[in-house]
Amino acid sequence: MIITANDPKRTSWLEVMPNCDFPIQNIPFGVFITKEDVITIGTRIGDFAIDMNALQQLGYFDGIELTDSVFLQDTLNDFISCGKKTWREVRNRIAEIFDNNTPTLRDNEKHRDAVIFAIEDIEMQLPVLIGDYTDFYSSREHATNVGTMFRDPNNALLPNWLHIPVGYHGRSSTIIPSGINIKRPVGQTLPKGETVPVFGPSKRVDFELETAFITTDGNLMGENIPIDHAEDFIFGMVLLNDWSARDIQTWEYVPLGPFLAKNFATSISPWIVTLDALEPFRTASPKQDPTPFPYLQQTGDHAFDINLEVYIQPEESEAKLVCKSNFKYLYWTMSQQLAHHTINGCRVNSGDLMGSGTISGSEPSSFGSMLELTWAGKNPIQMPDNTTRTFINDNDTVTMKGFCKNENVRLGFGEVTSKLLAATVKY
Amino acid sequence: MIITANDPKRTSWLEVMPNCDFPIQNIPFGVFITKEDVITIGTRIGDFAIDMNALQQLGYFDGIELTDSVFLQDTLNDFISCGKKTWREVRNRIAEIFDNNTPTLRDNEKHRDAVIFAIEDIEMQLPVLIGDYTDFYSSREHATNVGTMFRDPNNALLPNWLHIPVGYHGRSSTIIPSGINIKRPVGQTLPKGETVPVFGPSKRVDFELETAFITTDGNLMGENIPIDHAEDFIFGMVLLNDWSARDIQTWEYVPLGPFLAKNFATSISPWIVTLDALEPFRTASPKQDPTPFPYLQQTGDHAFDINLEVYIQPEESEAKLVCKSNFKYLYWTMSQQLAHHTINGCRVNSGDLMGSGTISGSEPSSFGSMLELTWAGKNPIQMPDNTTRTFINDNDTVTMKGFCKNENVRLGFGEVTSKLLAATVKY
Repeated sequence: MIITANDPKRTSWLEVMPNCDFPIQNIPFGVFITKEDVITIGTRIGDFAIDMNALQQLGYFDGIELTDSVFLQDTLNDFISCGKKTWREVRNRIAEIFDNNTPTLRDNEKHRDAVIFAIEDIEMQLPVLIGDYTDFYSSREHATNVGTMFRDPNNALLPNWLHIPVGYHGRSSTIIPSGINIKRPVGQTLPKGETVPVFGPSKRVDFELETAFITTDGNLMGENIPIDHAEDFIFGMVLLNDWSARDIQTWEYVPLGPFLAKNFATSISPWIVTLDALEPFRTASPKQDPTPFPYLQQTGDHAFDINLEVYIQPEESEAKLVCKSNFKYLYWTMSQQLAHHTINGCRVNSGDLMGSGTISGSEPSSFGSMLELTWAGKNPIQMPDNTTRTFINDNDTVTMKGFCKNENVRLGFGEVTSKLLAATVKY
Repeated sequence: MIITANDPKRTSWLEVMPNCDFPIQNIPFGVFITKEDVITIGTRIGDFAIDMNALQQLGYFDGIELTDSVFLQDTLNDFISCGKKTWREVRNRIAEIFDNNTPTLRDNEKHRDAVIFAIEDIEMQLPVLIGDYTDFYSSREHATNVGTMFRDPNNALLPNWLHIPVGYHGRSSTIIPSGINIKRPVGQTLPKGETVPVFGPSKRVDFELETAFITTDGNLMGENIPIDHAEDFIFGMVLLNDWSARDIQTWEYVPLGPFLAKNFATSISPWIVTLDALEPFRTASPKQDPTPFPYLQQTGDHAFDINLEVYIQPEESEAKLVCKSNFKYLYWTMSQQLAHHTINGCRVNSGDLMGSGTISGSEPSSFGSMLELTWAGKNPIQMPDNTTRTFINDNDTVTMKGFCKNENVRLGFGEVTSKLLAATVKY
């Protein structure tokens, strides 16, 4: 089936401003609440949210095999379970409905009123019920930077890193959509040179610039997803801020990995951009040496050229761009991550979220965390209000953006933004 | 409100064999399917499963504030969300209904037929939808044994261990109830003395003897659960086998912790035994030195005297008891684990599962894993069929049992059992 929704010549009768992340070639999926407190699954073109349940009830999806209530849900999980053929049919149909040359909905005011909402009149929700959240560690530059700072510059990468897409389990219960603010975590830390820990608010709250992919039901327990089929099980991608408390992490993480240093909050962008939409931006990932085991080998290109940016905005000041990176820098691909995750028979469900790990490039300006950008606090960043930052301060807002651009089209993820509030705790 | 269900003098008109784990003083909660494919929430007395939805529909829970369909569910999550007062009222009422001196149900054949099933006629399901699964590492003896084997016998415990109940996130999608068999995982391992990994079935599949507790909705994101209230948020406990592939673990776990070595399978016993039922077995936990931070300090006894056993049964042979341990050996209590887990504002939901970590005692016969029992394979265990074991072989069945006993009553968890099948993989 051809992805007609990607036609770069197509324009929509809905207005799309230049440099908007949501032209008719994007058609992402999300969940929103209207002013009337109706929750529904939808998509977005320009600055308009589109109620897909209303579209279905009005017959606009007729001919596509869908259950009656698949879009009258508060999560996308059931729609994602329908599989790739259905996702593609629905996305192609939406492109057709909103094409400049299709008058049906355009010229029906009553239908338009039921279907289309101004983006400022709706509130985005978490798009999926996330059963399990896994976070990988797939940027060679990030792993090298961390290894150089904390271990040995001459042996920065650990022995397993070039053989396996290292990953670990995260916490689903504290994954939040863009726009929800978080609190500085408290916990135990070990001051430098001390042997006894202290207790209090973290002094080193950091962001980690990541993307994440969302899976459909992949495999039964005890079965694996072969790498050549892995992309069929990926519904789409979001931006992810893997909030981290570096000082808590350093004290707690041996030997079982990060725990309270990470599970206080993880922010994601609310619109899931499909792999189909990203197809025109497919590109090569870094050459892998040594050659990985056969279960991790693949031919063709499996990265995407996605520009990534991080901004820090102090309270009552303008924002500063602190990082420019790109998804294509990642050493391990999403297909490799998914093939590895399931090689032991680990079951993957609809709505599972898999983070990329911090995406750093080779240039210092592309490092995806304050830990790397300030080299563990040694090189503070100058802010527009003449303050400096080594890590994130109370009332700073961290915003990540992601977009793809070629000669024909620009499309993207919008943003994931969240403000860090001061710590509060009772005990 | 008094826990009348614990009255040790009470007997039931349902037959309970001596040494049965399910006297009328237990009244655990679970989910089962009948021969007619009806799924329901239930409890157990002796060798009888009791349909709690049928009890409710017939009016036996009248006067207790419950929604109509709270037991007509395929998970206990909604009932758990009702909170401790409701759990206690329902458990007390069940004790009353099945008391030898209460004729109402006993003498109503039609009602009995709708409510009571022989245990061999039903099939137990996973009792809860587990949003997040956390596994702790709270046995000092286990952590010391592992540290002695793999690091330094003179500094076996890592510096953080006596200050924080170390824990990490596990995978919810592969948690299975007792009776489901599993497959030997395949993956990468690094043979001793080599620098290049190999790929194939794990050669060191192990069990870990654990218990786990199940929470109710505890706190909003950004809030913590103070230790003095922690037990109010614990619905009950199960036995847990934290299946582990030691050779995969050794290669993959640095620096982010265990991943594929653990997430191929985790088995739990299907009946949740409430903290109320365990109350008569409350006992002291080991003295803690150094004194923990105030957020981890508590008065009174917070352990329970639960005898634990592990059996290995080779195919076509009798089972061998390989480990006898006790829940009370754990250094960190469940209250401390939950207070620590939430001190950073990490949200806890109804149905979350929190494993204790391997429960080893000080005697070699009480070590809770093959890794410790055979001291990393150095001391094989002799089996009844004259074979030996260093780790678990294909077609071995591993069974864990847990029970409490005093002069008045014995009650327990039944068992968690699972057979390890040979590896299969496609790629």
